[in-house]
Amino acid sequence: MGIENHSRTGTKESRSSRVTISLAEALRQIKDNIIAPVTVVESVDITVSSGRVLARDVYAAMSIPLYNRAARDGWAVRSADIASATESLPVRLVIKGSVTAGSMPGFSLSEGECAGVATGFILPNGSDTVVMLENVSYDGHGVNIARPLPAGANVAARGCDIREGDLILKAGTILDPGKTGVLASQGMGTIEVYAKPTVSILSSGDEIVPPGSSLGPGQIYDINSSALSALVGDTGATPRVMGIVPDRLTDITREINQALSADMVIITGGSSVGEKDLAIKALGNMGEIVFHGVRIKPGRPVAFAKVCGKPVFVLPGPPSACLANAWLLVVPAIRRMAMTCG
Amino acid sequence: MGIENHSRTGTKESRSSRVTISLAEALRQIKDNIIAPVTVVESVDITVSSGRVLARDVYAAMSIPLYNRAARDGWAVRSADIASATESLPVRLVIKGSVTAGSMPGFSLSEGECAGVATGFILPNGSDTVVMLENVSYDGHGVNIARPLPAGANVAARGCDIREGDLILKAGTILDPGKTGVLASQGMGTIEVYAKPTVSILSSGDEIVPPGSSLGPGQIYDINSSALSALVGDTGATPRVMGIVPDRLTDITREINQALSADMVIITGGSSVGEKDLAIKALGNMGEIVFHGVRIKPGRPVAFAKVCGKPVFVLPGPPSACLANAWLLVVPAIRRMAMTCG
Repeated sequence: MGIENHSRTGTKESRSSRVTISLAEALRQIKDNIIAPVTVVESVDITVSSGRVLARDVYAAMSIPLYNRAARDGWAVRSADIASATESLPVRLVIKGSVTAGSMPGFSLSEGECAGVATGFILPNGSDTVVMLENVSYDGHGVNIARPLPAGANVAARGCDIREGDLILKAGTILDPGKTGVLASQGMGTIEVYAKPTVSILSSGDEIVPPGSSLGPGQIYDINSSALSALVGDTGATPRVMGIVPDRLTDITREINQALSADMVIITGGSSVGEKDLAIKALGNMGEIVFHGVRIKPGRPVAFAKVCGKPVFVLPGPPSACLANAWLLVVPAIRRMAMTCG
Repeated sequence: MGIENHSRTGTKESRSSRVTISLAEALRQIKDNIIAPVTVVESVDITVSSGRVLARDVYAAMSIPLYNRAARDGWAVRSADIASATESLPVRLVIKGSVTAGSMPGFSLSEGECAGVATGFILPNGSDTVVMLENVSYDGHGVNIARPLPAGANVAARGCDIREGDLILKAGTILDPGKTGVLASQGMGTIEVYAKPTVSILSSGDEIVPPGSSLGPGQIYDINSSALSALVGDTGATPRVMGIVPDRLTDITREINQALSADMVIITGGSSVGEKDLAIKALGNMGEIVFHGVRIKPGRPVAFAKVCGKPVFVLPGPPSACLANAWLLVVPAIRRMAMTCG
């Protein structure tokens, strides 16, 4: 663009006359216009489900813990049996049997009986309380207990972590190590998650060349494709780097059309005003410009369009502005498209 | 483990007699004992380099910007020419030529000359200042400027972001979208990064069954393999889920031996004390127990060993304790093993 164009198109004037909107309004319009989120559901193994978006509400199929378990090392007892215990008149209980780690006890406790347990052991039926090891005197045949304890003391009761039937994770939740563990606790070996949205990334500008090639006079490397690819990937979508498109309306139109095979398109301008206007012109011909110009700095010339029902962002070319705008506007759009509830 | 074992081995007593260390001391011992970090270097395409660990110091091959560029839309001038400009006696400059977006200007400015530029345009040689569009009166042949500006005003000078030869990213840096962009600005199409450490994950316990199978009486699902796999992956390592090993010393020894094909091993106990002791016993036979017992809650029985020079963690079986300990102790170990400088 020469000085003649520059003065004739009057960038200052056209910028001033453009209606800009606030960031909040821009986010609202993005939200309202992402009407075709990714609804394809796929199954993934639970060990690789972290970072994915849960596609179904998950209700607990079983209580966790599934059994009353000892929360301390000690002796499983019936609390009623030791209600009258005192230092001067301890209650003596008979040892009924052995509990084995991770197995159902092979017996129940009747009145006057107890059983040794360690933390995590399943309590025998009949017992409701664990007396800690150090509060018991043990003589090889029976135990003497000198203090009462309320029912449930030192017991991790069935369902105290998760209760059967409870809603434990909502559709739209982004899974993380802890939530993955919660699903594993329910025995889910595979998880239904939403497919990752795909995002096409286009860089426009005659002066832009891909990293790894040699730089001619006046040219600059394409920074935005790499930075946006990383950001899109980190946000839980699949980036498709489409390369660099020259500053010609026909080229930009053709490349955007190809890019629309993805669920979302990002096109970044070069460093000049004219280039961004070409993308806007192409998008205006192909679909609807939802907004063009947001009152944020950097990023005033950012634009959002809908083409064939798909969201298209036009981000500024300067990399810091591009990345800042992507964080502010594109990340929420991807989250929405990915069906997250956050 | 029955009551006879339980009382005979005296879990309380053995716990009390064990020498525990502080969290800070545990972290120091982990740091000191990871002496064989992953030093294998691999090249990855820049678009997939985010999250990886840079393997080389990177010095700027070129300044960014590489040329003096306009930071505003306006007129490139020689500041000396307008030093005397006043409202009543403006300086008139002749338009020398046109600058095109993203190209080297085909001319230089001599005394009394100017050229129209837009933001990001390369300044012609001779010019050192940009007068903003709105501060100039333009009549089609020349421009009148009514105020002086210091040299460098409204110019993004060569090297103002990055200077050729500067250290821009240190080896050990974890790449992110912004840092990936910095490397792209230098024309790096592929990046040398450290290979991801591999981490074997073993769950031990006779009562543990994998999610996706059916649950027998007294059994519980393996939560830790999924949660740890997610955490290991999120930390930039490659998890290898090895499955569930029964509570027998020979089995545990054999499985740890197989797991040692990875760079690091994590073994988690079931819910009982006895199981964890089996892993400790196996590791004591195979290598060196560096510590066993940290004064943190949950996690007191956590252990760290070195076998064949490789770090092995024994984490508690209860999932919340397991995950908390993994965050506190295993994540820093992976970071160190992955050669991060953070």
